[in-house]
Amino acid sequence: MPIRYVAFDGDDTLWHNETRFHLTQTALRDLLRRHVPDADVDSHLAEVELRNLRLYGYGVKAFTLSMLETAIQVTGGRIPAADLEVILGWGKQMLGEPTELLEGVEEALREVSDRYELLLITKGDLFDQESKLARSGLAEMFAGVEILSEKNVHAYRSVLRRRHIEPEEFVMVGNSLRSDIAPVVELGALGVHIPYPLTWHHEQIPEDAMPREGWRRLASISELAALLDSLDQTSALGA
Amino acid sequence: MPIRYVAFDGDDTLWHNETRFHLTQTALRDLLRRHVPDADVDSHLAEVELRNLRLYGYGVKAFTLSMLETAIQVTGGRIPAADLEVILGWGKQMLGEPTELLEGVEEALREVSDRYELLLITKGDLFDQESKLARSGLAEMFAGVEILSEKNVHAYRSVLRRRHIEPEEFVMVGNSLRSDIAPVVELGALGVHIPYPLTWHHEQIPEDAMPREGWRRLASISELAALLDSLDQTSALGA
Repeated sequence: MPIRYVAFDGDDTLWHNETRFHLTQTALRDLLRRHVPDADVDSHLAEVELRNLRLYGYGVKAFTLSMLETAIQVTGGRIPAADLEVILGWGKQMLGEPTELLEGVEEALREVSDRYELLLITKGDLFDQESKLARSGLAEMFAGVEILSEKNVHAYRSVLRRRHIEPEEFVMVGNSLRSDIAPVVELGALGVHIPYPLTWHHEQIPEDAMPREGWRRLASISELAALLDSLDQTSALGA
Repeated sequence: MPIRYVAFDGDDTLWHNETRFHLTQTALRDLLRRHVPDADVDSHLAEVELRNLRLYGYGVKAFTLSMLETAIQVTGGRIPAADLEVILGWGKQMLGEPTELLEGVEEALREVSDRYELLLITKGDLFDQESKLARSGLAEMFAGVEILSEKNVHAYRSVLRRRHIEPEEFVMVGNSLRSDIAPVVELGALGVHIPYPLTWHHEQIPEDAMPREGWRRLASISELAALLDSLDQTSALGA
């Protein structure tokens, strides 16, 4: 069955995301060490984020709330409100920043859009994701947009069913083995992994826990059109 | 054209919502007046929420962040971090609370589901809304669920197009004239307004700004099945 649908993750696949979080986290570390010089801010924040995931889900608002909680706890409640206001401001800044596309994204999408229906399947905060997509200038290229609260097998299965898409005609492109690749491979679709230099610890899964087949890895989205070409030729030979 | 789809708003139509916000806002007022006895907390919070809407969207996380900002500003930065931690805790409590259905909701949905396809069309934070729906025990009754970042004419038009629904066969039931009734009436669908005792100021529009026709008002969701019956008879007579 030939490929008909190519779906893309958004954060760190089409546009930079983790870098924003990383920079803000560095600023938080500096701020809190002024109060508690030997604080292990990163570990504490990671714990708080994981504990809050069930209530907050993903996204900048969740991150901001977890930063505030971490700041209060790490300083034993001694942090002044003015510093917490600074943290609130970082969250707003992240939410208002322009969407910065990764290199080659626009060209790659244009190349691929000639022959396939493009979907955006992203995870996180609904409002923030819609806003980022609008600011990306890419919205017109997608036949459909799905913003999910969690990207697992169940969520992908629902999307494919709702859109009457067979797994064999579906390719998912993304930077997270956990959210973009493993679940679609389990459904029998193809995953195309394009690593991003930074990956949030929560998104990491050990490489040897991945299935051997059903996914490919590219160094850059610029190689995507050629990969899809070669897969289509293989499929045509096999038919 | 007979009615085929009956869509419901979630917050304050199927389950209590504004009451939670109202109670928390009362607690915020009490907390801040301990620091600034004559503070106009409600007005300040309303301003902050409105200013942040463009960045935060709707929902409990947005509300928590706006409460924190209000608390810092109203006290001129003098509020101790421990009190801000209390506010963080209120947000978590709201997010974890059981979904409390309005009276008669289950029976009304069951009555109506025999003859129509039911949809849930709600607004707010994706993660929170999905979680509330899951905890409501109602999820199985809906043929489709749409969680929108904003409920305006454009958003409803997209939902109807995507689902191949004609406005004439669509009824929207909700408590907000602004979000549930006015936009669907503009599309030529029927709105059924069921007021909730409390309405967030942002959702209020003056009654005389509403069109004269295209919508009905019920005192309770228990009257919905009878209304739809009478509409179907009118439609059959007209055909």
